[in-house]
Amino acid sequence: MDPALDALIRSAARREGLIGLAGGLPSARQFPKRALAEAFARALSTPASAGSALQYGWPEGQDRLRAQIAAGLAQRGLKIAPADIVITHGAQQALTLAIDCVGRRGDWLVADEVSYPSALQLFRARGLRLDALDSSKLRQARLAYVMPVVSNPTGQSLLAAERRRLLARNALFIIEDDAYAELAFAGPPGRPLWAEAPERTFHIGTFSKVLCPGLRVGWLVMPPRFRQRVRELKEATDLQAGTLSQIVVSDYLTRHDFAERVARLRRYYARRAERLAEALSKHAPFWRWAEPAGGFSIWVETDSEVAETPFLRAALKEGVSFDPGSLFRLTQATSPLGFRLCFSAAAPDTFAEGCRRLARAWRRVARR
Amino acid sequence: MDPALDALIRSAARREGLIGLAGGLPSARQFPKRALAEAFARALSTPASAGSALQYGWPEGQDRLRAQIAAGLAQRGLKIAPADIVITHGAQQALTLAIDCVGRRGDWLVADEVSYPSALQLFRARGLRLDALDSSKLRQARLAYVMPVVSNPTGQSLLAAERRRLLARNALFIIEDDAYAELAFAGPPGRPLWAEAPERTFHIGTFSKVLCPGLRVGWLVMPPRFRQRVRELKEATDLQAGTLSQIVVSDYLTRHDFAERVARLRRYYARRAERLAEALSKHAPFWRWAEPAGGFSIWVETDSEVAETPFLRAALKEGVSFDPGSLFRLTQATSPLGFRLCFSAAAPDTFAEGCRRLARAWRRVARR
Repeated sequence: MDPALDALIRSAARREGLIGLAGGLPSARQFPKRALAEAFARALSTPASAGSALQYGWPEGQDRLRAQIAAGLAQRGLKIAPADIVITHGAQQALTLAIDCVGRRGDWLVADEVSYPSALQLFRARGLRLDALDSSKLRQARLAYVMPVVSNPTGQSLLAAERRRLLARNALFIIEDDAYAELAFAGPPGRPLWAEAPERTFHIGTFSKVLCPGLRVGWLVMPPRFRQRVRELKEATDLQAGTLSQIVVSDYLTRHDFAERVARLRRYYARRAERLAEALSKHAPFWRWAEPAGGFSIWVETDSEVAETPFLRAALKEGVSFDPGSLFRLTQATSPLGFRLCFSAAAPDTFAEGCRRLARAWRRVARR
Repeated sequence: MDPALDALIRSAARREGLIGLAGGLPSARQFPKRALAEAFARALSTPASAGSALQYGWPEGQDRLRAQIAAGLAQRGLKIAPADIVITHGAQQALTLAIDCVGRRGDWLVADEVSYPSALQLFRARGLRLDALDSSKLRQARLAYVMPVVSNPTGQSLLAAERRRLLARNALFIIEDDAYAELAFAGPPGRPLWAEAPERTFHIGTFSKVLCPGLRVGWLVMPPRFRQRVRELKEATDLQAGTLSQIVVSDYLTRHDFAERVARLRRYYARRAERLAEALSKHAPFWRWAEPAGGFSIWVETDSEVAETPFLRAALKEGVSFDPGSLFRLTQATSPLGFRLCFSAAAPDTFAEGCRRLARAWRRVARR
């Protein structure tokens, strides 16, 4: 990333009193703090349990947690064994393992034209060449990266036609990032792509959005033929996910109604999405965006040639932040102006004022 | 790894009642369980602290912990800023970041002829070519991997001549793995190699050996010119180390006398090393090994052509485990027979019986 833009984003994230529509953080109010504190206390309550919770574990992760994840995925029609799962240090590492398992420098990878910045950062670091899912490159692509249920940043799901086209290309490895899938506002997500093409799909999930991200617990479901390879890569890369974190998440899942929690979070974020959409309609009717079907954010597009860094500077001056669009674009293009607005973490009663400030900043920069 | 050998090692690790001289685990008895439980409770005690401890953090890690690590390294003569440090998901990930920062497929990497298995696994996964530190390949090597203070598995330190030779080769990137450095039995380790060649040394440290491994907190000190590149790689790879784990380690360091703890651990493991050495001398005088200067293990060499898998099977039958030597060798050679014996985790009063059993198993296999 451009260091100046990076510095701007970091200083904004640390600034108190800003209306923070950037960052894509889950709402810390929704972390089950007391329940997790109790789970930690339980795991560390006896010398024996504390001893093993603080010790090394196997690269593939804790058996009990893998069984729980497999049981959760079974409810979506995915019939897998715990052995198909490796517990990872968050979804991002699951993505890294998938790429390092089957990607080779110079390979073409297709993805949505706007996609998740840290995934794009990884693909570039690994020397992959990127193009859009609906481009002619799909034919020669080795890899496709998709968020079929809820995309970051757009909050949209994969079109049925796109899904069919992906599945029709037998030579393609599909990386299915379901980080936000449980937060589809319409309810529990359907069958993952993995179920349709298990021999070439890597399915990624995480507890970061529906429990909390600070524990870094995610998972990768790999094609059965890559089980050993992924386990070896996991070991070579960082040995294992945190032992204690895994035990705590597993304990939480055992003792609480997770489906009920996720249903509540869906309603919570859906209400927030609605509030931000209202505020945008009212205070910035000149921008284009689509109502999100889930997730944490709205993706805004404009026809404006206003440059994003001056716009971000102006917005921060007004006291509101957003995520610059170039970070999300396969092309890294800074224009036309586009950006992500997150409704996940800021207080909803600041959304109207946030949008007013954004509109004011935009008019100011556009006028120059 | 050979799947049969892998299965054997894993079944042994799970077997109750075995005298476990394999695995290289720190002693769980020495984990500061109560202190860590209190630190977790403190971090999660108020909604505000719990909220940020369970939230996302920056890729480089928590500022306070980085400052504490920098202060610790300053006592070894390393003058660095917290900005030179990235907190990693254990030392293994620090190694991965260093390799991914400067290594390229096909590069030569030199290391001790017997070295740390998961490092070798990483180097192979990244397509590096391996040769011994004292081979002619040093001249064309791009990378050197060393554990200058305490090597795993030998427990020896780098010879002064080797140190000079490494430093003399200006084109060489040095990866300095100090995972066991604090456990040099003679006392606090001296100046890291980083201090001599900061522009091309990656220095790796961890809390896994001196606090506990299950939290997965390690660090990488990189050459200043690679600060941004490493931070971006960390973000692309897995976003960040666990937020809560970092806060807990930092809190522990603030409230306890860490130097005193480390000094106690040195004595603890030194006594165990001595006990295992005595047992080996007495019950298996026909094997070669050197008294370790630190760490968790003794590396045993033989002139025997006995194959390691049958020997391991026989040892497990006798009720004792060890780590097969091929895992540690750059060449992956299974003969002559060599192996690692760990004194770190098993009860010292089992060492004599463990060595008797090993000797018995060896005689049994050798006789065939």
